[in-house]
Amino acid sequence: MSLNIVEASHKKAKPESEKIPFGRTFTDHMFVMDYEENKGWHEPRIVPYEPLTLDPAAMIFHYGQTVFEGLKAYRTDDDRVLLFRPEKNFERLNLSSDRLSIPPVDEQEVLGYLKELVQLEKDWVPSFEGTSLYIRPFIIATEPSLAVAPSKSYKLMIILSPVGPYFSGGIKPVTINVEDKFTRAVKGGTGMAKTAGNYSSGYQAQAKAVEEGNNDVLWLDGVEKRYIEEVGSMNIFFKIDGEIVTPSLSGSILQGITRTSILELLRKWEVPVNERRISIDELYQAYEDGKLEEAFGTGTAAVISPVGELNWLGKKMVINDHEIGALSQELYDTITGIQRGRKDDRYGWTVEV
Amino acid sequence: MSLNIVEASHKKAKPESEKIPFGRTFTDHMFVMDYEENKGWHEPRIVPYEPLTLDPAAMIFHYGQTVFEGLKAYRTDDDRVLLFRPEKNFERLNLSSDRLSIPPVDEQEVLGYLKELVQLEKDWVPSFEGTSLYIRPFIIATEPSLAVAPSKSYKLMIILSPVGPYFSGGIKPVTINVEDKFTRAVKGGTGMAKTAGNYSSGYQAQAKAVEEGNNDVLWLDGVEKRYIEEVGSMNIFFKIDGEIVTPSLSGSILQGITRTSILELLRKWEVPVNERRISIDELYQAYEDGKLEEAFGTGTAAVISPVGELNWLGKKMVINDHEIGALSQELYDTITGIQRGRKDDRYGWTVEV
Ligand SMILES: Cc1ncc(COP(=O)(O)O)c(C=O)c1O
Ligand SMILES: Cc1ncc(COP(=O)(O)O)c(C=O)c1O
Repeated sequence: MSLNIVEASHKKAKPESEKIPFGRTFTDHMFVMDYEENKGWHEPRIVPYEPLTLDPAAMIFHYGQTVFEGLKAYRTDDDRVLLFRPEKNFERLNLSSDRLSIPPVDEQEVLGYLKELVQLEKDWVPSFEGTSLYIRPFIIATEPSLAVAPSKSYKLMIILSPVGPYFSGGIKPVTINVEDKFTRAVKGGTGMAKTAGNYSSGYQAQAKAVEEGNNDVLWLDGVEKRYIEEVGSMNIFFKIDGEIVTPSLSGSILQGITRTSILELLRKWEVPVNERRISIDELYQAYEDGKLEEAFGTGTAAVISPVGELNWLGKKMVINDHEIGALSQELYDTITGIQRGRKDDRYGWTVEV
Repeated sequence: MSLNIVEASHKKAKPESEKIPFGRTFTDHMFVMDYEENKGWHEPRIVPYEPLTLDPAAMIFHYGQTVFEGLKAYRTDDDRVLLFRPEKNFERLNLSSDRLSIPPVDEQEVLGYLKELVQLEKDWVPSFEGTSLYIRPFIIATEPSLAVAPSKSYKLMIILSPVGPYFSGGIKPVTINVEDKFTRAVKGGTGMAKTAGNYSSGYQAQAKAVEEGNNDVLWLDGVEKRYIEEVGSMNIFFKIDGEIVTPSLSGSILQGITRTSILELLRKWEVPVNERRISIDELYQAYEDGKLEEAFGTGTAAVISPVGELNWLGKKMVINDHEIGALSQELYDTITGIQRGRKDDRYGWTVEV
């Protein structure tokens, strides 16, 4: 399909330092594409960033039929702009859409449009250390109908937002509360999909965790409330007695692209890694035995976010003395190095815009 | 707060028969009220029904922070307009909001605005047998931010839609599939809240059920996949060996207002009723023993929707020979009679507009 581009007449001011609050500044343009039952996905276009006009009965407002993605564009020292494994985001978008009964997109085609959008907004990719351009593709159901059934029309949009460094002033390990009451997801539910309802359902647990002095929540499985699943917007890894353990994809956790990349790296490096069920009791036992050597969350936002402390039912696990571990640091340096074009991209993970 | 009313200059044509498709026709006006962190809920207003304008980053599109309600206005034979226990809907709206970290509304105040809106749109309450005016209050998060955190601004809206009879040509018992793979809700999740994400997550199970010749889905609990929870948008009741059994409010099912009303009626009538856990195995055993006498869903849409057939893992339970049972019929007649002003409202359930 041919992409129509309408240039914005007025250009906004770009951030002038690395102090950019997350997800509040948007670039001059956005990508939009529509779906209708008889036309399929059509009318791909880049237009000025502008408000959306929707019927109050549009299904997105009532039954939550929506999916999204999150990835970043990075500026290299020699002023190229790189995306990190973006094809995996559109693959996952379609996986999420399938769960939510949303029609799939042509992954290659939409990736092509994304590249055109980022190309147009190239000057918005910040160059300050640790900054990047956050990319948010999302699909919403737009049919004006209160019938509880899949929508007959959708809108796919891509908006772009320059973001500051996740860690300002050096990597700081986080404190995380193991949630024992609220549930994020369960087998047969939507946990493996990146869909809106999975996030707001965690706000109460998040608020409780923060009140008690934590930064985030570690979710347990919804059935037994024993098996470790993931952190708010991150997958979780542990180094136990020299082996790296991460929860297997049970159907209720998100298949993180950072998680996949780390597993691939560790296997290349011949570090013992194990994707399996791991219970919070087992983790605590490992901690008591002095075998819990490192813990870190992984995701597009931070790449690696070391966990310095876990709080579980009044028990505290302090990990690696609240310091980032050697392996966490190596993974962080490797992946951010590849993303920034400072390390050899030997796996072909980056895509230049 | 004083309610501002802007009248629509153009009035739409009202439906001229009882053949009104559900949730596609909307009246001339809607109610809107805004929330901002420092102002609280403010600027209640009735305005012409018109499209909403929202930033593409508005949080409703990304993290699903939203709740809704559903109730009806009925026209009596002597041309009065009645609401059925509307205070319960605003009580439940606040319960849902609490789960989704949305600030509560003043229930009495919003009920007052709703009455003003219905008063203004009185001519839209259809008079054909079985028709009514469906009322959809909903709250959406509007802050333009991609941070995974509660929104600092919200919009509460109420839209109205004339709807046709749920059953056209007499009550018809439905066929329902007992879902064994997908999960709707789990303890600690959002199942007890009326929030968007709970509905689209059921579309796949719904499509599968319909493909296999059913009308709807019966959900089992998310933990053991054994205990009966509810139907798509209805609570469920069984008559087993003379006793009425309905699943207790486990935290993962919606507290239906029709359910509450039926329990109250049955207790007044001194019919034995039991709110408790009931497993699908137990139900099947009762069926095999010839003790499953009636089954019916309850909700605002149909009031009572008799279940004629349940399909569970290839086993079929035919209930009361695919006919509505005597008790189901009596409950239906009583509640619809009260709603339409044809029966004495001895419990004070209706509110005249
Ligand atoms: C629930 C959840 N888990 C994990 C992740 C990490 O995935 P990725 O590495 O693809 O960013 C994310 C986020 O982006 C997420 O939202
Ligand atoms: C999930 C669910 N269960 C039950 C009900 C029935 O509730 P009520 O009787 O208040 O309409 C509804 C609907 O409205 C619902 O959405």
